[in-house]
Amino acid sequence: MDRLLPTELRDARAVNRTDDEADVVIVGLGIAGACAAMEACDTGADVLVIERAGGGGGTSANSGGLVYLGGGTPVQEAAGFEDTPEEMFKFLVAASGPGADEDKIRTYCEGSVELFHWLENQGLPFKRSFHPEPGMESPTDDCLVFSGGEDAAPFASVARPAPRGHKPRTEGKAGPFLMQRILAATARRPARQVLDTLCETLVVEPDGRVVGVVARTAGEERIFRARRGVILSAGGFSTNSEMVSRHVPQLGPCRPKNATEGDDGRAIRMGEAAGGTLLRMDQAEVALPVTIPHRLGRGVFVNERGQRFINEDTYYGHIGIEALFHQHGRVWLLVDDAIFEVNMVGMQPAHVAESMAELETAGGFPEGALQATVEHYNRYAKEGRDPVFGKRPGMTQALDRPPYALLDARTQSCFYACMTLGGLATRPGGEVIGPDGTVVPGLYAAGRTAALFSGRGYAGSGISLGDGAFFGRLAGRSAAAAAPV
Amino acid sequence: MDRLLPTELRDARAVNRTDDEADVVIVGLGIAGACAAMEACDTGADVLVIERAGGGGGTSANSGGLVYLGGGTPVQEAAGFEDTPEEMFKFLVAASGPGADEDKIRTYCEGSVELFHWLENQGLPFKRSFHPEPGMESPTDDCLVFSGGEDAAPFASVARPAPRGHKPRTEGKAGPFLMQRILAATARRPARQVLDTLCETLVVEPDGRVVGVVARTAGEERIFRARRGVILSAGGFSTNSEMVSRHVPQLGPCRPKNATEGDDGRAIRMGEAAGGTLLRMDQAEVALPVTIPHRLGRGVFVNERGQRFINEDTYYGHIGIEALFHQHGRVWLLVDDAIFEVNMVGMQPAHVAESMAELETAGGFPEGALQATVEHYNRYAKEGRDPVFGKRPGMTQALDRPPYALLDARTQSCFYACMTLGGLATRPGGEVIGPDGTVVPGLYAAGRTAALFSGRGYAGSGISLGDGAFFGRLAGRSAAAAAPV
Repeated sequence: MDRLLPTELRDARAVNRTDDEADVVIVGLGIAGACAAMEACDTGADVLVIERAGGGGGTSANSGGLVYLGGGTPVQEAAGFEDTPEEMFKFLVAASGPGADEDKIRTYCEGSVELFHWLENQGLPFKRSFHPEPGMESPTDDCLVFSGGEDAAPFASVARPAPRGHKPRTEGKAGPFLMQRILAATARRPARQVLDTLCETLVVEPDGRVVGVVARTAGEERIFRARRGVILSAGGFSTNSEMVSRHVPQLGPCRPKNATEGDDGRAIRMGEAAGGTLLRMDQAEVALPVTIPHRLGRGVFVNERGQRFINEDTYYGHIGIEALFHQHGRVWLLVDDAIFEVNMVGMQPAHVAESMAELETAGGFPEGALQATVEHYNRYAKEGRDPVFGKRPGMTQALDRPPYALLDARTQSCFYACMTLGGLATRPGGEVIGPDGTVVPGLYAAGRTAALFSGRGYAGSGISLGDGAFFGRLAGRSAAAAAPV
Repeated sequence: MDRLLPTELRDARAVNRTDDEADVVIVGLGIAGACAAMEACDTGADVLVIERAGGGGGTSANSGGLVYLGGGTPVQEAAGFEDTPEEMFKFLVAASGPGADEDKIRTYCEGSVELFHWLENQGLPFKRSFHPEPGMESPTDDCLVFSGGEDAAPFASVARPAPRGHKPRTEGKAGPFLMQRILAATARRPARQVLDTLCETLVVEPDGRVVGVVARTAGEERIFRARRGVILSAGGFSTNSEMVSRHVPQLGPCRPKNATEGDDGRAIRMGEAAGGTLLRMDQAEVALPVTIPHRLGRGVFVNERGQRFINEDTYYGHIGIEALFHQHGRVWLLVDDAIFEVNMVGMQPAHVAESMAELETAGGFPEGALQATVEHYNRYAKEGRDPVFGKRPGMTQALDRPPYALLDARTQSCFYACMTLGGLATRPGGEVIGPDGTVVPGLYAAGRTAALFSGRGYAGSGISLGDGAFFGRLAGRSAAAAAPV
């Protein structure tokens, strides 16, 4: 395999030393790697974790900290929400878009309550409380939020609405706290952590089996052997601009990336070089949080043709994907004076006018288009109805108090927080598979190094942390149970 | 590499016989394979072509036979259309969507006139004539058509409109004639053709170099060695339902597939197993030919919300991609009695009503939505204008002569002819590249086994045959020029 040297693969026959060795070698210490390490340790395996940064956490520690859990968790029950794995499954399949991996979603839903208890047992507390403002994590230490538009059209009629975004008990953004507790729990296990060490390639036997990694610490090469398996859990490719432009060119102008420097796609490419196939490389999570505070959802989103394209009361992740992938990132939020109060929102409108006709001209919309949209919207909004998109009555009100304002929500003007979702194709147990569905022996992936189970969409905030924790654990268990070489 | 045996790769060390050997071994005899074979022969290489069917042709022979050529071909000049490689480039980049491979497009445009002459020199005649009905190939033996909406919004203002769909001189559908002439020209070369032989795996040296193929004829295994290179040109994956549901789930319900049995993705998976990376696996050509005859484009397409989504006078491939990927395949064409004449069109309307309000209810549209769309459309159409989508004046007329009719153009009710466009990532010269952009030595790909240069779209009819011929030739030249092993 000389062709693949030195950047892609290392032939095991050419490796004549070993710096350390373990049953399971894990690459990357975000939530997926940490949960994989804990689970592998707990089944008795000898585990070694390699992290490129000076400490664990990765993009998980940079997140809001919501974990998507359901099916009847203690928090859901305490807050009075009935949920079952089946209702959770119905929601996730519908909200994940065409092509979702239903096997993985089913496994995830059926194991969700158990994951909740396991996380609490690791020292991650969840307050038994509900925060009624939907969307992102609460500013308080309250736990539960509707984080995927479960109670909005069209999903509210697909599955019984239940909030499933679970925030660990801390105020505001919870990613740092989440990973602090998860890393503390990991540190209580005997897994050895090798920090400041960048994994560069995989060590592969002539028969294709992955048996270790080649890494670099302070310029020096180090070889780590894996007796049972290597787990790649080193993030996605959000910060690799070449991979982004190849696979998800629409993300190019989006800022910020929900990512750290480590999300450079290296682990995905290492796994691919070893025979893994890639899945859903064109997919991304895209959040357009203009409608936080939620009150702004009483306005209407329009595309460059002045047409509405979504119910504005839904999850800002659904809005982001629709805006970026289907409306070319060229969208505006239209509000009237009753909705918009500059000081509370902190966002300056791009255009303000006393009449809709003037605003239409100022915003450069086609003649009559914005006026026709608002006229139709207002006609039913006066009755609290939205026959086109089914926005809920409390959020549907006529735009009739001038002045009217347009908030510029185009990619070049507005936050579009995004993250890649494509990666290595895996079985539910984390085994990386090749083009024909056969397993690459010795190789596992979890977190954003693996393709998320969603099809063409991102079901809700907390999905990626939930998936990382859940399938990270399964990968840890699978690798620990593999026959040693 | 035992892991990959027997389905994925064959270790050259385990191969102890050879049935035949050549400088260049080509897998698949459609337009790409044939052009690769001719070009390789013409540079003096010894060439062997393997085809699974009883004769060459493949999906190319099943096509309409348009070849997308421009930049000032003799047909364009004779018909009075001015074109340059630069205008062709501007159109193709715009119509190919975000993420298009501009290097390949530039190469293609700059070599297009030369390709035209080369095709004529192979015995493929093109009448010096223009057929004014845009869209698909002419029913006559006339050559040139607008096959990508070059003269429609928004492209007409991006690049000087020129028709570039070139049909070989025969009446009606020209794919069979095209491939008959191309295959006859191929047969005049000394390339050896091995028919009824299915290639199953690649033979790979321990250093990763591809040195041959393992094939099967009437149940017997045969080994073909390649001294300089193997070219994979065996089609896409349109007929592999598992690959389609994994990568382009939206195509599932679409019929017909522009494909033959051979488009099962095998060559793509063979190349991937040998170290090639995949690109744009989520992309497809999707034609929704409801607006043939073009006259029907005087109606308006609406989505399930009763909104328009495109200028109806454009290429039915742009309509198809927009309808399937962005409107979930749930679209209708609305016409009035002045446009629709059942006997000429042969399509029965799903709903007919004397008023737009009744039609709206019958079609299940949201209250008032269809009426609002038509009211706005008619207001400007009376002046021959379409301020929203820029449909051309001659095609823009008010829908005001009842009865009104809805043609059901949803995926389950209507033809959506489709073809996969994703495949192996290649350099312009056809070299297959791996995850890190390095070349897989000895391996080339062309036609739909390689990823098309388009980004998120399909620029026009004739692109795939043009790409197959053009980059097939380049691959043949590259492989023939490689150093022998």
